[in-house]
Amino acid sequence: MVNFDYQNPTRIIFGKDTENETGRLASGYAEKVLLHYGGGSIKKTGLYDRVTASLKDAGLEVFELSGVKPNPRLSLVREGIKICREKQIDLILAVGGGSVIDSAKAIGVGADYDGDVWDFYTGKAEPQGSTPVATILTIPAAGSESSQGSVITNEDGGLKRPCNSLYMYPVFSILNPELAYTLPEYQIACGTTDIMAHMIERYFTNVKNVELTDRLLEGAMRNIIHHAPRLLQDSKNYATWAEVMWTGTVAHNNMLDTGRIGDWGSHDIEHELSGMYDIAHGAGLAIIIPAWMKYVHNHDLNRFVQFATLVWSAEMDFNEPAKTALEGIYRLEAHFKRMGMKTRLSEVGITADTYEAMADKATDGDTKTLGNFVKLDKAALMEIFSLAE
Amino acid sequence: MVNFDYQNPTRIIFGKDTENETGRLASGYAEKVLLHYGGGSIKKTGLYDRVTASLKDAGLEVFELSGVKPNPRLSLVREGIKICREKQIDLILAVGGGSVIDSAKAIGVGADYDGDVWDFYTGKAEPQGSTPVATILTIPAAGSESSQGSVITNEDGGLKRPCNSLYMYPVFSILNPELAYTLPEYQIACGTTDIMAHMIERYFTNVKNVELTDRLLEGAMRNIIHHAPRLLQDSKNYATWAEVMWTGTVAHNNMLDTGRIGDWGSHDIEHELSGMYDIAHGAGLAIIIPAWMKYVHNHDLNRFVQFATLVWSAEMDFNEPAKTALEGIYRLEAHFKRMGMKTRLSEVGITADTYEAMADKATDGDTKTLGNFVKLDKAALMEIFSLAE
Repeated sequence: MVNFDYQNPTRIIFGKDTENETGRLASGYAEKVLLHYGGGSIKKTGLYDRVTASLKDAGLEVFELSGVKPNPRLSLVREGIKICREKQIDLILAVGGGSVIDSAKAIGVGADYDGDVWDFYTGKAEPQGSTPVATILTIPAAGSESSQGSVITNEDGGLKRPCNSLYMYPVFSILNPELAYTLPEYQIACGTTDIMAHMIERYFTNVKNVELTDRLLEGAMRNIIHHAPRLLQDSKNYATWAEVMWTGTVAHNNMLDTGRIGDWGSHDIEHELSGMYDIAHGAGLAIIIPAWMKYVHNHDLNRFVQFATLVWSAEMDFNEPAKTALEGIYRLEAHFKRMGMKTRLSEVGITADTYEAMADKATDGDTKTLGNFVKLDKAALMEIFSLAE
Repeated sequence: MVNFDYQNPTRIIFGKDTENETGRLASGYAEKVLLHYGGGSIKKTGLYDRVTASLKDAGLEVFELSGVKPNPRLSLVREGIKICREKQIDLILAVGGGSVIDSAKAIGVGADYDGDVWDFYTGKAEPQGSTPVATILTIPAAGSESSQGSVITNEDGGLKRPCNSLYMYPVFSILNPELAYTLPEYQIACGTTDIMAHMIERYFTNVKNVELTDRLLEGAMRNIIHHAPRLLQDSKNYATWAEVMWTGTVAHNNMLDTGRIGDWGSHDIEHELSGMYDIAHGAGLAIIIPAWMKYVHNHDLNRFVQFATLVWSAEMDFNEPAKTALEGIYRLEAHFKRMGMKTRLSEVGITADTYEAMADKATDGDTKTLGNFVKLDKAALMEIFSLAE
């Protein structure tokens, strides 16, 4: 176990009808709220009305910025920052999924900074504060509702870049599983893939003696594997959504990776895919992760055997453990397919002639590597793309 | 899953040599620190010198109150409150195990209150604030380093009572597994029993559909079962202590019981035992929990079968699941014995003639019940004591 410094101050209000407490909770932080959301779906479901009523009942002044798209855009973030400054907003309330929350976080740190918010995503500067952000989660997936991360896409160049900062933890997040009932099957599949991916990135580490977090990650992964397919049969089951929604938060709130160093290579590769092709984040991960596993599994066969037996309950082959290791990868791929995900680049129209451009872009022309479990250079990426063909 | 409101703001600084960061961390909160500890053990190990040096290097003024005993006393708490007021202490630094930390928490809320601190432990009043408390943990057991609870004993009547409050979360806790190297075997056994007990109390719930936290609790319990016996062989193993110390914190930081309602009957019964006989908390739990399980297991046989199979890897007897349920209880008792704990009242000199007095005291003369999984009245307690004979 490596030394760590862990704190997650986000308050979670979880359960039925909890969105009606928004005003009461927000009034602890704010007089002027910027309501930030995507398109019309929260209006169709009535969530928009309930939330604005709750805010106004609490005597809060509400401003609005809608239009967040998947892979949230820097240009809208800049618009939000402008509103925050002009209106002296003291709480940004993100109502939506990871894209809306990530956009709100960018607005929050940007409004508190004299320079250009993109500096935080290029590493040129680090946030020193933020206008508080709160969330009402509608899509269990990204874990952004209780994480210190945000991913923004700069349309100028299709650059999708992450920023992590203690100032990006939301002050509170409201999680009502019922708000996910209207999600279409494809978004359920993408979201639960993303949740699994967050745990897989943490699980594959070179740090030894991390057994508590191994056990916690295995338990949480088994919970997603058990419940995600049930949502395809019954997308309005409270108990099932509650499991998936809470696991999605726990998967990414940094508790499960205390003392270990995660990989995150697959996420970085996927950011290139979705930055260049605008495919959903979960869709990219379902393709990259199994290929990445096939490429790296010999680096620590024992860990892949552990993944196969303790996550997938694969039979242990004591004479040929390598076969057990591969069995875990095959079961993960089968699970993604069962969820309706495509697991090959060719299935989403990405062909071999683009591999080199993607590998070059991800590695800045083979000048940097991705991942920690195995450091991936351009050649490694080319092999992973071939394995994902 | 039931609705919940979860927040744990305690910052954890975990790892080797982290006690040397005390001054840097404390200076974010304080100019005047009350160092609170037990006896001479932290002086013998040199921890006292390192901590005071770190505090003084950071320019902090240090006051002291030592003498905390197991089952920490109200009289010393009152002394601490007096010092805090006279010296205008702005941070109480507990260096020790759960008793020292619980005592510090009581001083913290008491210093911030005009009335008598015991009011918080009788339920007469609720804390509305606290002088900040920080901790350096030396005994993995109580989980108080990241919990909202404190248990204090009023010598006047041998009353041992808990108080829970959001104001009791420490602002930061320093966890260095090396600080536990000097613990004697008996304290290792008591501490790991207490950690198991915290998870068992959470595990046995009547709330349905709590599968994420079931899986997390099972994983964390397996981790203690795996590592605790190793400490008896090698009490200076960093990796093993790191597992036990971090699991001890996670077991009681309220993350693992989100959405469920724990039992806590065994803890309440044990408080009577250790309040009346001054036996160690873990020692009392090792006796009460197996007996409690034997008494209640038919209330939800499925859950006990789940405990046996997923925590203890007991073979499932599909034809006679009740046998599998009992097997889990027997394995827990065998584990406690292997750790060197006594598991019967008679072994610690508590005889049948005192059962009625204990049962009366715990239930206020059969006017209240203990526990949630099964409500225990005086008659139930008498049966549990018989099963523990």
